[in-house]
Amino acid sequence: MRRHYFLDEYTIIAAERGKRPSDFKHGGTVERSNPKTCPFCPGNEDRTPPAVAVYTDDGVFADGEERVKGWWARSFPNLYPAATPSPGTPTKEWVADFARGYHEVIVESPDHEGNPSSFSRRDLHRLVSVYRDRYIRRISESGVEYVSVFKNWGRVAGASLSHTHSQLIALPVVPPALKVEMDAITSAPRCPYCSFVEREASTERLIFENEKFVLIAPFSSMVPYETWILPKDHVSDLGGIDSRGLAEVLGEALRRLDQLLSGPPYNYMIRQLPDRRYHINIKIQPAISIMAGFEKNTGIFINTVPPEEAARQLREV
Amino acid sequence: MRRHYFLDEYTIIAAERGKRPSDFKHGGTVERSNPKTCPFCPGNEDRTPPAVAVYTDDGVFADGEERVKGWWARSFPNLYPAATPSPGTPTKEWVADFARGYHEVIVESPDHEGNPSSFSRRDLHRLVSVYRDRYIRRISESGVEYVSVFKNWGRVAGASLSHTHSQLIALPVVPPALKVEMDAITSAPRCPYCSFVEREASTERLIFENEKFVLIAPFSSMVPYETWILPKDHVSDLGGIDSRGLAEVLGEALRRLDQLLSGPPYNYMIRQLPDRRYHINIKIQPAISIMAGFEKNTGIFINTVPPEEAARQLREV
Repeated sequence: MRRHYFLDEYTIIAAERGKRPSDFKHGGTVERSNPKTCPFCPGNEDRTPPAVAVYTDDGVFADGEERVKGWWARSFPNLYPAATPSPGTPTKEWVADFARGYHEVIVESPDHEGNPSSFSRRDLHRLVSVYRDRYIRRISESGVEYVSVFKNWGRVAGASLSHTHSQLIALPVVPPALKVEMDAITSAPRCPYCSFVEREASTERLIFENEKFVLIAPFSSMVPYETWILPKDHVSDLGGIDSRGLAEVLGEALRRLDQLLSGPPYNYMIRQLPDRRYHINIKIQPAISIMAGFEKNTGIFINTVPPEEAARQLREV
Repeated sequence: MRRHYFLDEYTIIAAERGKRPSDFKHGGTVERSNPKTCPFCPGNEDRTPPAVAVYTDDGVFADGEERVKGWWARSFPNLYPAATPSPGTPTKEWVADFARGYHEVIVESPDHEGNPSSFSRRDLHRLVSVYRDRYIRRISESGVEYVSVFKNWGRVAGASLSHTHSQLIALPVVPPALKVEMDAITSAPRCPYCSFVEREASTERLIFENEKFVLIAPFSSMVPYETWILPKDHVSDLGGIDSRGLAEVLGEALRRLDQLLSGPPYNYMIRQLPDRRYHINIKIQPAISIMAGFEKNTGIFINTVPPEEAARQLREV
């Protein structure tokens, strides 16, 4: 049983001997819809709410009465929002008005067949720049305390449409999971992320690094082939990030996962806070294992692939 | 956004209008294997490790050189254990020797086609009695601090074999999730479970009750059609439970879920502690929704079915 670097979280590594990447069966992610009816495709912009940000070679615009064309990315309110600027008055005891906020869908590419694991360097840089731009915009709004940026890739990872997209949910509270982290961080003598990034860069859990970032398989990986992207320097949020460096390491992470596991469904999650004590990190979790009764009962995960083995395979791809 | 009764856990209820039970598509759970090769079927007992407890009309036995026949339930060590009596010496920094313990598979019925949602009263009572017996046995072992008893039903809920079975994992530590609960319980003026059980018995979230137990859809349900079973009196673990009353309410819960959602995959988890301050509870979670990037990023769940609506439908089945 392994403990998280600095939180009271545990994983049981129960390696099943001889288990290979190809033993992780998944339905794949490719359930291609028809681009003619895809609401995320160019030409169908009026099938989504008006975009709050349309990224083009001529700059960033908001949709007016006419939808902006010729974009390479666009972000608009989710039709089924988990948070909304005007959630109505809470009417029942115990109901907190926490879901006041914003919920955006970020379409990352006009290409209906686009796949981030094979994005060009330019497209990866655009992707990271869009995340950065939308994050900075939303975290600056009055009443917003946390901005969750994440991607679901593949139906079993929660993507209901196949055209590549990410989501942003801005909340009026710091979620409990982040609060627990901040408590641990503020009670440590120095940033615990900085400490383990330094250490892990010279272990068998390092998969890739460039000047500014590491890609590691974390010591207490909760799921098979989990990886984390972290800046080597202490950076708190996307506002201070080296976007070219991040684009490179994100591309490496997704390309390696895609090749090793034959296009698996996955989620990635950006954790960041507009608080200088926090250290931004991105967790990438393939959705190829099941969270079953034991995990739901105890909060302890069982992982059948030791991270050292996952890192070795991901290095060699 | 709703808060858990007494923990710092939140769910966003984002009801999609007009969503009906039949909109929750799932592959079903019936992928029946061949009883001739099923290791959980009578006649194939030698395909499992020797059982530590075989339940028969003549009493409870352990397998010797010959496997005990004529059983109605049997429990044996899991072939792929997450915890084991002799886990070997930890060799790496940060590795805690926490996985010392026991991991049992409990086959609940000799019937290859058996389904707990249609178990007879007798079979349900036997099931609860076996849980109680194995729990008491393991929690009494030296070095065991927590015993997780849970059931995965259906492949997408984590069951790798279709013949009905549960699992027991005995751990040498109280898991973090239980520690957090105990902290909240010990700092409350009275048992918070007792408090909300009293309150919820007269709300629209009550689904079923008998003399000793309630079945409710909890106020901050994390997933659609989540239900909880709780004793009305303060009882800490299966040792003090009314087993006939529990058998009845468990049967009601499973039968209603099965009918409303057409045989969904699900997990149920028994939370209990051998500590008089704890209040035993059983959470039943259908595995018909996806834990995606937002949940993994924030720890906050998005649930598209308000528990009041789930309770109404489950009452009317």
